[in-house]
Amino acid sequence: MIRILGEKEIKSIVSLDLSVVEDIETGFSELDKGNALVPPIMMIPVPEKNGEVDIKSAYIKGYNQLAIKVASGFFDNSRLGLPSQSGQMLVVSAETGFLQGVLLDNGYLTQVRTGAAGAVAAKYLATQPADSVGVIGSGVQARFQMVALMLVRPYSTIRMFSLDAEDVKDRYVHDMQQQLNVRVIKAASIEAVVKDSAIVVTTTPARKGFIKAKWLHPGLHITAMGSDTEEKQELEADVLAAADVVVCDLKSQSTRLGELRRPVAQNRVAVDSVIELGAIVNGRTPGRTDERQTTVCDLTGVGVQDTMIAVKTLAMAEEMGVGLTIA
Amino acid sequence: MIRILGEKEIKSIVSLDLSVVEDIETGFSELDKGNALVPPIMMIPVPEKNGEVDIKSAYIKGYNQLAIKVASGFFDNSRLGLPSQSGQMLVVSAETGFLQGVLLDNGYLTQVRTGAAGAVAAKYLATQPADSVGVIGSGVQARFQMVALMLVRPYSTIRMFSLDAEDVKDRYVHDMQQQLNVRVIKAASIEAVVKDSAIVVTTTPARKGFIKAKWLHPGLHITAMGSDTEEKQELEADVLAAADVVVCDLKSQSTRLGELRRPVAQNRVAVDSVIELGAIVNGRTPGRTDERQTTVCDLTGVGVQDTMIAVKTLAMAEEMGVGLTIA
Repeated sequence: MIRILGEKEIKSIVSLDLSVVEDIETGFSELDKGNALVPPIMMIPVPEKNGEVDIKSAYIKGYNQLAIKVASGFFDNSRLGLPSQSGQMLVVSAETGFLQGVLLDNGYLTQVRTGAAGAVAAKYLATQPADSVGVIGSGVQARFQMVALMLVRPYSTIRMFSLDAEDVKDRYVHDMQQQLNVRVIKAASIEAVVKDSAIVVTTTPARKGFIKAKWLHPGLHITAMGSDTEEKQELEADVLAAADVVVCDLKSQSTRLGELRRPVAQNRVAVDSVIELGAIVNGRTPGRTDERQTTVCDLTGVGVQDTMIAVKTLAMAEEMGVGLTIA
Repeated sequence: MIRILGEKEIKSIVSLDLSVVEDIETGFSELDKGNALVPPIMMIPVPEKNGEVDIKSAYIKGYNQLAIKVASGFFDNSRLGLPSQSGQMLVVSAETGFLQGVLLDNGYLTQVRTGAAGAVAAKYLATQPADSVGVIGSGVQARFQMVALMLVRPYSTIRMFSLDAEDVKDRYVHDMQQQLNVRVIKAASIEAVVKDSAIVVTTTPARKGFIKAKWLHPGLHITAMGSDTEEKQELEADVLAAADVVVCDLKSQSTRLGELRRPVAQNRVAVDSVIELGAIVNGRTPGRTDERQTTVCDLTGVGVQDTMIAVKTLAMAEEMGVGLTIA
């Protein structure tokens, strides 16, 4: 039986809460234990349309389903009045290979699992408490990351900086104030955000590092989730070289597509000194050991996250009888 | 709008005919022209279940859709009374990246496009006429390959050899006689099949070459479509070394997963001497130049075939108003 779920149905049953954060944490844990088989990301370029379709997947031992996530980024879509990102997931039985679920989430589950990874990073790396936090960007992930952060490090103020239009920023301020009941301040500069925040999350498609090492201050934690291609970068290489603890979700991805690409290529950061998030979750390696350390976590997005959230979503839909089923 | 098609609906609108063969031929032609972007196959292993999920895709310039094909092979499924192979395809807009079709074909379209590739190989490489043809195997591809061959090289006799149970072989004989109105002979040996056939198609998951070079005879054409993993092999390395013309669908796959793996690794066949099928389709390289030559074509299955057949299927479904649509 194949269950097909639409975006609205999926949104009605899964939201970014602690249970999702726990599942994503379990995904990183299994990855670190060597229980996950994660093939390299498949990329199908569509250069004529400034587009790309990326496929991620992971089989996690002991789980009887695995997900295949198809994510599109077509960066000329705005000319057509369409969002650049879209996507969906297939859930396949890890017992028989047969298709069991089609999650037409239009990228929603990716937003949720990416936010949840930010929460896992902050849970293990950020100082506590974190009264004032910062975000660079005012898009969808700037929202999900702040929702996720609230689950693990409750805060009262967001400082936001973004290159988006004023009305986009104003909407962000309004929506986050409403949703999280916090103060949201439009900061005058990135430096101002970093200076006044205990935790900063970067959520942009920038192609040049915009966080400088000289802005780092004792206790700061930075999660950089924007870079996921060879061209993108949010942190200057100096930041990773200067940080006391450098963490990433998956070294093989981060050194190729993430913030570690430049600093490792430039021999500013030794790959061996970088810790994978799952190793910290599993207690194999300490993360932050001192309140005054600076920590950085680079997230590129790993197939285990997709398998974890897709399996959860389909299980919930089955339990609740949501969706269309085909024999 | 997303159109969802089930297996029955797909079977009602697409069958292995000359229009599909032409489409697959066009796919190989575009590949040869450098108009197709074909990422490496993504493989998700599920070792505990002797299973694997493979993903193929290709973007072909000038086509406004591309396909992502998910194919499962779980080789312990027979214990559960289930077929080992299954699969489905997603059709994504190459203009916007948005999902446009979900083809729940359960592997049917892969069977059709694989058969069609066999027809393209025979069309350009086999001698004409070919009164008596041979097939090794009696499974699904042993059927599709013979149906495909009839479209391009009409014949009157099939000689079949298979290690399957007698009732499976008898069913093959019965079904093919009915479907194609030809004589089907259960041969006593593989050698007997090769000796008495102008064209031989191998369709097995064998892990050791079973066609010997000494059996080659003037004018013989062999299409080997079974091998698609590092372990599989149907032709002894000698066969490829001895053949006058060696062709494959995609060198980068055939040398890794197909019949070319061993002979190239053993320096028995020079990669430069191997011709890709599309180059022959495009007339860039001659294939067979003499009725007495022996020719071999190795097919591993290329993402362009999946994109071609998926785009065709969705277009036909739209035209005929078949399937379920979701806004």
